[in-house]
Amino acid sequence: MDSAYELSSDSSLPALNQAGERPPPDLSHHLSKLAKNRDVSPLKGIMKYNGVPGMISLAGGTPHPSLFPFETLSSSTLPFNAYSTNPPSLVSRSASTTLSWLQSFFVQNPEVLKIKRKDIVIPKYATVGGGREEILLERALQYGGADGLPALQTFLKKFSHSVFQPFLPSTVSLVNTGATDGWSKIVQTLCEEGDGILVEEWTYPSAMGAYMPYNCKPVPIAMDGIGMLPSDLDKVLTEWDVETRGGMKKPHVVNTVPVGQNPTGATMGGERKKAIYEVCVKHDIIICEDDPYYFLQFDTYIPKSQASLQNAPKVYNNKKSQEGEITDFLESLVPSFLKFDYQGRVIRIDTFSKTICPGSRLGFFTGSPLFLERLQRASETSTQSASGFSQALVTKLISEEWGIPGYTRWLMGIRATYTMRRDWICDLFDSSFHLEHNSQISVVGGLKGVSCYAKRASLTGGAMDEKSRGKGPALISFIPPTSGMFVWLRIHVENHPDYQKLLAEGDEEPTITLMDELWTALADNKVLVSPGAYFSPYARLPGTEVPESAQGGFFRLAFSMASHEQLAVAVSTMERVIKEFFKV
Amino acid sequence: MDSAYELSSDSSLPALNQAGERPPPDLSHHLSKLAKNRDVSPLKGIMKYNGVPGMISLAGGTPHPSLFPFETLSSSTLPFNAYSTNPPSLVSRSASTTLSWLQSFFVQNPEVLKIKRKDIVIPKYATVGGGREEILLERALQYGGADGLPALQTFLKKFSHSVFQPFLPSTVSLVNTGATDGWSKIVQTLCEEGDGILVEEWTYPSAMGAYMPYNCKPVPIAMDGIGMLPSDLDKVLTEWDVETRGGMKKPHVVNTVPVGQNPTGATMGGERKKAIYEVCVKHDIIICEDDPYYFLQFDTYIPKSQASLQNAPKVYNNKKSQEGEITDFLESLVPSFLKFDYQGRVIRIDTFSKTICPGSRLGFFTGSPLFLERLQRASETSTQSASGFSQALVTKLISEEWGIPGYTRWLMGIRATYTMRRDWICDLFDSSFHLEHNSQISVVGGLKGVSCYAKRASLTGGAMDEKSRGKGPALISFIPPTSGMFVWLRIHVENHPDYQKLLAEGDEEPTITLMDELWTALADNKVLVSPGAYFSPYARLPGTEVPESAQGGFFRLAFSMASHEQLAVAVSTMERVIKEFFKV
Repeated sequence: MDSAYELSSDSSLPALNQAGERPPPDLSHHLSKLAKNRDVSPLKGIMKYNGVPGMISLAGGTPHPSLFPFETLSSSTLPFNAYSTNPPSLVSRSASTTLSWLQSFFVQNPEVLKIKRKDIVIPKYATVGGGREEILLERALQYGGADGLPALQTFLKKFSHSVFQPFLPSTVSLVNTGATDGWSKIVQTLCEEGDGILVEEWTYPSAMGAYMPYNCKPVPIAMDGIGMLPSDLDKVLTEWDVETRGGMKKPHVVNTVPVGQNPTGATMGGERKKAIYEVCVKHDIIICEDDPYYFLQFDTYIPKSQASLQNAPKVYNNKKSQEGEITDFLESLVPSFLKFDYQGRVIRIDTFSKTICPGSRLGFFTGSPLFLERLQRASETSTQSASGFSQALVTKLISEEWGIPGYTRWLMGIRATYTMRRDWICDLFDSSFHLEHNSQISVVGGLKGVSCYAKRASLTGGAMDEKSRGKGPALISFIPPTSGMFVWLRIHVENHPDYQKLLAEGDEEPTITLMDELWTALADNKVLVSPGAYFSPYARLPGTEVPESAQGGFFRLAFSMASHEQLAVAVSTMERVIKEFFKV
Repeated sequence: MDSAYELSSDSSLPALNQAGERPPPDLSHHLSKLAKNRDVSPLKGIMKYNGVPGMISLAGGTPHPSLFPFETLSSSTLPFNAYSTNPPSLVSRSASTTLSWLQSFFVQNPEVLKIKRKDIVIPKYATVGGGREEILLERALQYGGADGLPALQTFLKKFSHSVFQPFLPSTVSLVNTGATDGWSKIVQTLCEEGDGILVEEWTYPSAMGAYMPYNCKPVPIAMDGIGMLPSDLDKVLTEWDVETRGGMKKPHVVNTVPVGQNPTGATMGGERKKAIYEVCVKHDIIICEDDPYYFLQFDTYIPKSQASLQNAPKVYNNKKSQEGEITDFLESLVPSFLKFDYQGRVIRIDTFSKTICPGSRLGFFTGSPLFLERLQRASETSTQSASGFSQALVTKLISEEWGIPGYTRWLMGIRATYTMRRDWICDLFDSSFHLEHNSQISVVGGLKGVSCYAKRASLTGGAMDEKSRGKGPALISFIPPTSGMFVWLRIHVENHPDYQKLLAEGDEEPTITLMDELWTALADNKVLVSPGAYFSPYARLPGTEVPESAQGGFFRLAFSMASHEQLAVAVSTMERVIKEFFKV
């Protein structure tokens, strides 16, 4: 699959070494002028002398810690095993009331009821000793390096190497002030004004918001239900013509959300990633792997109606040895691009927003020292370090209190909770609509999911069986997500009774007209969803022809925040409003 | 003084209105292409619907707060009156041992000994009600607006209007992620590649580090001991010639640190600021007032030897009504540029780094809505919001717990503490060297401070009186700082015995040679200081002629961090090393 491209035979690659291995090529030509111009701050340079024993420094303009009004910092925190590693079982999901849902959740998550909070405390000063990695307010609240607290550096290094298993041992990690700022700094580090950036044909609007003000433009690549198509990536790059592209030079940066893609929910496995990677080697492309949902990978959705022991998802035995459970979990995750990155052309972006909290404004880059050193320089003259409060509290919790196994166990609980929420919203659509799998209808990029039809009562008042019910048109369809936080809901406006009429009346974009009408009707009925058009790079490229695969009306529904009760109201409202909209 | 320029008669100014007032002009031509290109994120746009009562939102990809592992956050904090408002008195300073210094400090600061910490606690969820401004982890740790927590917005608005008293009532404040990032965002918002930025002829290297990678260059303006000279600013701008300037267009941005200027310690009063402002009106310049040391304004330094009740600095009566004391304090501070800003051309940068702690990575802009709205957009696609931990803790303390009067009282304690430290270092130089005031020797920009000579013992072993001791050359000199954290120490290398010899031998820069030698000798003797060259914009402008006023050897000494004991060792080491260096 996806092999309509040749492997690289680029003669600019370094020669094989004696062991027959190709050392990583020099990729410094990818750095922007801005990135190349950055110096090490001379003040930072002098700071290294501070470490000399007995040195009295009058060099840095650091305020005195006795004047920091915070003397200790403490937090009551959840234990790493606060949430069950298993979402509610198929059997308990079959009970249909909210109450039973909640019961099943608590049965599955006994820790929630008898949970013991643990107080973590960060003192201002060391009591005795105070090794380099000790977390103290006197240090965390002082000016600090852009590379973060030493204990956090150590944690990130160990965590990223054990979990992402980068191909190159030289791969490093660097804390940042969240994925949005991380991506913004990557744009500044790699791109010049007017560059094109290769993206999925549905993409995250805030990522575009970071580069479009520089007159950088998205270059959409066709995708299917598991993500960007290597064949289309290769085709676009091979056929790149500066003139027909309005003077835009051939792009050298891919921005991809490979897991739980925002908004489509697509997730690339290792095979797809390898294929994309080889195209990037062939065309000398840097891959920015923006992966906020990496730890939110779920089992396949199985509707309640099809629940059986045979197709039940893997159940984690909470009594099993923690180590074995964690190994199973990590092995269940798709590999990162880093695992295939033998040339150092991947910059991975992780965030603590989805796994700890967005307010931490903490994330980290992982990639080659070439790029990460320049990103560190970019931080030094802008954000400097991440917040010391954030660094101290998060590091104290996940590194000192939990450790890597504990933090990984915490991630399993997060994953199970969002799996439950994914099941909630899918089950609710299953209840409100008549769902059919394996339909002929493509949801996105030719991929089939479930299509939803209006349920119709039989003449005798009971639910009709499928064959006899006289199915109307598909109203909506979606691929039950296997990761992330979103259902990418297709509205089959082409089946709307007025669609053809609008076309005939000269409306060139009846999809937009009808989607606006439906969005407004939903908002009037107090259900707020994200319009699909927000996520379309084509919507930002006026005059560009939109391929078939990137057309269609969509909403993005987040299942991450609303309660089950709210979701039930929302889906039932959607059922009513959508049926009214389609006049069925 | 400084009036060698004419007031503006720019015909592009808006006409007078009926009341004879000139409405603020449109300054949007100062925005960079990048800043003009920034859109409001469509996702942010939709968020406003979240406030509609009963709305169920599936729009935002927000993680569920039950999965934030932090359940409460608490901190043991100092009370706002932890530190005395008065530095140790002249009398207590006259005692010369470290011990007596410490005693005098504690006598002056009785609260330090019997201080009562106060625990502040931030819950995750509201217990009852939970108004918009309540500080809760469920909100602070969630995704938030670039404009920060509502309670912090309110605090900043009230604080900046009451303390800085901006001329224009429309002046607004906006939280940011620290002054370094704030300045970096201003550069992006106002400047194009290759722009010149007007700075003092000694300036903060990290500020240059933010714009030089964009090929923006500092344009040094001559200064005296109180800061940038309006006459030179006017001259440079009036005589600006694009060709002789190598194609650089006439600058339109001033970057100034007007209080406790880094590194010189110069502080501009209202008269100087008004004069600078009028030059900026004349030439249509935006003023970036970077003011980290604003609340660290001290009384004039009086050497112990000249201590008397007649010239004693103002003593605050700690028993006086808090309100009166605070009013006195605020009135003692020089006015901000905002006070004169009738055209909305000032962007003020404040930071909590010096008044709360650098690790907060919190600061704020104050200025016209035109610029601040664009700065907010710049944050939305980069740093998003400041850390929620930082915002919650700092806001809880200074807004809820202390309030504006309490926070102002805290600032008075900070000011007194750094005044004490300023006295420490000046007194130590007074002890180690023979100090003379009103000398003929200019320290910086023609301004006289104190010159320091080697003390010489009389033949009988006692200290000689001044007249008979046979004064050698001035070794060092400085202006005792009246604000900030630094002594800008001039080393009179021109008096070094080898200076002329080096010149004769063809060394074109004997100052650099000798300063390097002295810096290394100090570091070898375990005293670390910042080399003056770091702070020279001329050092970044190879080939530019350095005016007399910007020459000379300097070190910047921070007195903010070292203990009195360390400072005593450092100054006594400097005495020894400097005498050896000068061979006296």
